[in-house]
Amino acid sequence: METRKIFLNEDEMPRQWYNILADIKMNPPLGPDGNPVKPEDLAPVFPMNLIEQEVSTDRWIDIPEKVLDVLSIWRPSPLVRAISLEKALDTPAKIYFKNESLSPPGSHKPNTAVPQAYYNKVFGIEKLTTETGAGQWGSALSFACSQFGLECRVYMVRVSFDQKPYRKSMMETWGGKCIASPSMETKAGRDALEKDPNTPGSLGTAISEAIEVAVSDQTGKTRYSLGSVLNHVMLHQTIIGLEAKKQFEKAGDYPDIVIGCAGGGSNFAGLAFPFVLDKINGKQIEILPVEPAACPTLTKAPFVYDHGDTAGYTPLLPMHSLGHAFVPPPLHAGGLRYHGMAPTVSQIVSEGLASPRSVTQLEAYEAGILLARTEGIIPAPETTHALACVIDEARKAKEEGREKTIVFSWSGHGLLDLGTYDKFLSGSLHNFVLSDEELAKAEKIFENYPKPSLLKSF
Amino acid sequence: METRKIFLNEDEMPRQWYNILADIKMNPPLGPDGNPVKPEDLAPVFPMNLIEQEVSTDRWIDIPEKVLDVLSIWRPSPLVRAISLEKALDTPAKIYFKNESLSPPGSHKPNTAVPQAYYNKVFGIEKLTTETGAGQWGSALSFACSQFGLECRVYMVRVSFDQKPYRKSMMETWGGKCIASPSMETKAGRDALEKDPNTPGSLGTAISEAIEVAVSDQTGKTRYSLGSVLNHVMLHQTIIGLEAKKQFEKAGDYPDIVIGCAGGGSNFAGLAFPFVLDKINGKQIEILPVEPAACPTLTKAPFVYDHGDTAGYTPLLPMHSLGHAFVPPPLHAGGLRYHGMAPTVSQIVSEGLASPRSVTQLEAYEAGILLARTEGIIPAPETTHALACVIDEARKAKEEGREKTIVFSWSGHGLLDLGTYDKFLSGSLHNFVLSDEELAKAEKIFENYPKPSLLKSF
Repeated sequence: METRKIFLNEDEMPRQWYNILADIKMNPPLGPDGNPVKPEDLAPVFPMNLIEQEVSTDRWIDIPEKVLDVLSIWRPSPLVRAISLEKALDTPAKIYFKNESLSPPGSHKPNTAVPQAYYNKVFGIEKLTTETGAGQWGSALSFACSQFGLECRVYMVRVSFDQKPYRKSMMETWGGKCIASPSMETKAGRDALEKDPNTPGSLGTAISEAIEVAVSDQTGKTRYSLGSVLNHVMLHQTIIGLEAKKQFEKAGDYPDIVIGCAGGGSNFAGLAFPFVLDKINGKQIEILPVEPAACPTLTKAPFVYDHGDTAGYTPLLPMHSLGHAFVPPPLHAGGLRYHGMAPTVSQIVSEGLASPRSVTQLEAYEAGILLARTEGIIPAPETTHALACVIDEARKAKEEGREKTIVFSWSGHGLLDLGTYDKFLSGSLHNFVLSDEELAKAEKIFENYPKPSLLKSF
Repeated sequence: METRKIFLNEDEMPRQWYNILADIKMNPPLGPDGNPVKPEDLAPVFPMNLIEQEVSTDRWIDIPEKVLDVLSIWRPSPLVRAISLEKALDTPAKIYFKNESLSPPGSHKPNTAVPQAYYNKVFGIEKLTTETGAGQWGSALSFACSQFGLECRVYMVRVSFDQKPYRKSMMETWGGKCIASPSMETKAGRDALEKDPNTPGSLGTAISEAIEVAVSDQTGKTRYSLGSVLNHVMLHQTIIGLEAKKQFEKAGDYPDIVIGCAGGGSNFAGLAFPFVLDKINGKQIEILPVEPAACPTLTKAPFVYDHGDTAGYTPLLPMHSLGHAFVPPPLHAGGLRYHGMAPTVSQIVSEGLASPRSVTQLEAYEAGILLARTEGIIPAPETTHALACVIDEARKAKEEGREKTIVFSWSGHGLLDLGTYDKFLSGSLHNFVLSDEELAKAEKIFENYPKPSLLKSF
């Protein structure tokens, strides 16, 4: 019997996060006046201790003891050798995955929800607002708020709210409040409903509602929380890769290839950034973010300044973007339906430190089924995108006859997305691929925007 | 930071199951002629290697290497110290739980599904049939069959099939086939549909369909599989308690109280039986099976001979039973809606080795919410019954000012039962309690049945 799971004890959990801003140059976010945003500009939206993390260039940042304590509900997560998949593929490659599906909400999202709730609590905040698309992030923040005694209000895109009632139930089981967006509670919501009373909602509108509620609370006790894209979110997620490195040390192994799915970028960054540090220091590693062919920001979209939200409320961020007006097709991996990409992930790609890939929805589900029937766990639709790339690399290793070591991030389980497996198995799922015409149209939005510099950190 | 999780390495997994039949006397199952059933009578239904386990009185039975290998996908399961719950209750009791929710299907059920699939495979069987109520067992068997390359056909009670489409999706993702019961595929199904074309179905009919398909396969390559009640199922589940004992040894602790929810009895038995062995050998331990007040077999029903299924196809089993015609009220803990109880569990209760408790549905969900908001994990409706008893015992320990050690079995997660949490939170969930009149009526069925002897093993 071969060992499948490599564990760390709780006292072996990393005590510090890795901050990639210490090692790469970045274009600054820009305000409405075209000038770099100052920390105090963000104070109505985020607590100052998180803003300090957002702009810090310290390489290592201490993880508070109380954050570690809550993370230890499910962390350290196991690094798993995918023995059964290797056998099914008859590959000489060794395949490992970091299983982030074991958290109570079922994904990597609480890795940042927990510290965000903690820092807000310490800062004296009593209520957090956020938006959620498919529901993973809203669930994670509700869970985290329940651990620190904070109120939580989640604006969930109407179409998902109706399609995925279990996500609302989950949030409310943890004491959070989940509201279909657009709602009548905010000006942004009322405006959207006035324009179209039957609107399915959008992530852009939901963000606007959540921000509006946070900044308009006169007591100053409410803030907004974001589950991806920002620097401090990537920072918190690096615990994934830092644990994985310790586990590889235990296993006497080290990856040749690191793979993660990328929507906003936080799952990919969480596993990859600690390995990017090694690559910067001379290690030979291939680092592959994988995105859907339907929403190909890193593989097709330009590196530009763009807004993080559809309504244009956020600062301009330097990133690969399809344009904030781009509406991704109704892909079932809701977590990968984002027009932009984390600025840090965009920067490492533009410096050649990572080589993005894209896969179609059908390739992804096919990979998901193979994993369910070998490794047993049913992957989230987002995770299946990483899987398709893993299988591809493992087959390549077989063709080349090379014993490579591959590691990927199992971002979440698919237990609340099982309906989409039904659709795949019954043949009613289709591919969406972005055409060059759509891409050209999407790019028009940047014509009058400032352009980020092509910085080289080395 | 206090340690929450006590792990074992994969090479510390128990190598043998504990068979309680070595230590207690049992009344034999009886055939239609009133005589004890012979092993060969069961051969059309189960493979002979499992029948041998069913009747074995060896105390320790080796776990095959290939079974251990598949179990190691998620086992050993962590023993978790419920620190946050202890704090919330301000109790001097130390509370631990064995987390069985981490298996791919989300419950303890694959602990027996995996060996059952393995033994059938080794015996040359190619297809397994079974029934499922809420869907946990059907999912577990589909998962296990996918690991050993067996076909799997699951007859799912129509009302659950319609209410819980995700369970069907889960089974089919693993390659199983899930059919609403009654179906037109079997005589039993057609008869039921002829009687009532709109019938919601019943576990009894689903069992009949699954058995009929198994025994009528002329190739002899199909068998039936059961997820609870039988001796070999209890045997396979003892890996839970055997692991727990090793983990307590690591923690330098030992339980005063062992608690598990009991429907058919396999989750309770899995944790408790290895501790029952210690109790037989002189240890002072309270062992508490917990059942719903709506379906109180151990706490209210007599110890009798009764059929395991509604249609009366199975042998007569010596057990606590409300009568095979008893239809449990529409309780949301589907896994606890069973008219009988495993003969081995019934026997240890009748010998005073375990002291059953019952709780109402609302007490159970209230406990479930508290656990979700402290320990983070959302429990299955079945698990919440154990939780209510745990909380009760922890409060008692506080009143008595005694530092007791409590362990319970977290039988599964509630991610596919979240709709019922919604109902609880919105106040639309109700209690069902069995009245004395209903009980008396249910008991009438036994008037002309043989009576089991009141055996004392000591």
